[in-house]
Amino acid sequence: MGGQVIAISREFGSGGRQVGERLAEELGVAFYDKALIHLAVAKSGFDPITFEKAEEEAASKFLFNLAIGSCVSAGGFPHISVPISDQVFFAQAKVIEELGARGNCVIIGRCSTYLLRNRCLRVFIHGEAKDRLRRIVEEYGVTEAEARMAKIDRARANYHQHYTDEVWGAARSYDLAINTSYTGVDGAIRVIRALR
Amino acid sequence: MGGQVIAISREFGSGGRQVGERLAEELGVAFYDKALIHLAVAKSGFDPITFEKAEEEAASKFLFNLAIGSCVSAGGFPHISVPISDQVFFAQAKVIEELGARGNCVIIGRCSTYLLRNRCLRVFIHGEAKDRLRRIVEEYGVTEAEARMAKIDRARANYHQHYTDEVWGAARSYDLAINTSYTGVDGAIRVIRALR
Repeated sequence: MGGQVIAISREFGSGGRQVGERLAEELGVAFYDKALIHLAVAKSGFDPITFEKAEEEAASKFLFNLAIGSCVSAGGFPHISVPISDQVFFAQAKVIEELGARGNCVIIGRCSTYLLRNRCLRVFIHGEAKDRLRRIVEEYGVTEAEARMAKIDRARANYHQHYTDEVWGAARSYDLAINTSYTGVDGAIRVIRALR
Repeated sequence: MGGQVIAISREFGSGGRQVGERLAEELGVAFYDKALIHLAVAKSGFDPITFEKAEEEAASKFLFNLAIGSCVSAGGFPHISVPISDQVFFAQAKVIEELGARGNCVIIGRCSTYLLRNRCLRVFIHGEAKDRLRRIVEEYGVTEAEARMAKIDRARANYHQHYTDEVWGAARSYDLAINTSYTGVDGAIRVIRALR
């Protein structure tokens, strides 16, 4: 499976990022996360403030709907306007599709499992709440971990649901879904590599 | 992981049964499916007709509710009655828990992933509709495959939802969820064995 692309979606605190980073390192391929995708999209003309705003909007279904009120004109169609959050999504989608077409990489988040479906191994990483809370507090140093975990998971689910016809976290949205509370980060990597 | 138990839940036509059977064969451990569990429970006093009835009831949420009207007295509690479908489930659950405690086996269906949680590797096998339909027609010789596939999946989801607090097919109900349309039956076995 030369040129393989692995796209990862994950619950907050599940260790999905570590799985992705270490997998890319072991396989000797590029790793793309939110920051790198942002950087790439920024080249296309968006400024960081627009990005932050779009991210906030994307985290809330309610704000998604309100965003219609703060939309800007789409180029070439003066009477049709597109919310900024959607414009950012489409710009990101273009970058993700380009990265996917180049092959040989691991991409995490931003609906990449959906955008690259049929052209990648789609992985979902999850874990038991108690293990995720421990990781969030000990490894990420986050306070109010329980509330943050629920909020971030909800934001990821909303974002996925807004831009795709899939359910975030449903087994059938992925080729492999892995519980790191059972497998550990090492086991998750072993499982994914078993398919190469 | 000596004595490991692998419990499998699956979409109809996903190849989950083949994965389970071949896995058990490769690992040299026992394989328990519906028929074997029925046989074991029958020893406990139920007759095959009671079983068939309970299975039919279990396939429908509507009938689940009606079953309350056809319940029989539970031993020792003359004023408390339990639907037959529930009695069969509890008898099956007891057998599954005994098989799980013995270890070294693969068990498929009957909420075994839930009943043996924390004591087994919980696997969900699914696949794209087109591949499942092909398998249902070619390998199982089923007619009206599309309707049967939808009906059987719905029955499995209802059964799981009635007896557990989990969502059937949600990634977090399992330790590994595998799309055989991506992995094939061989790949699914390789993925599961990567954890041993």
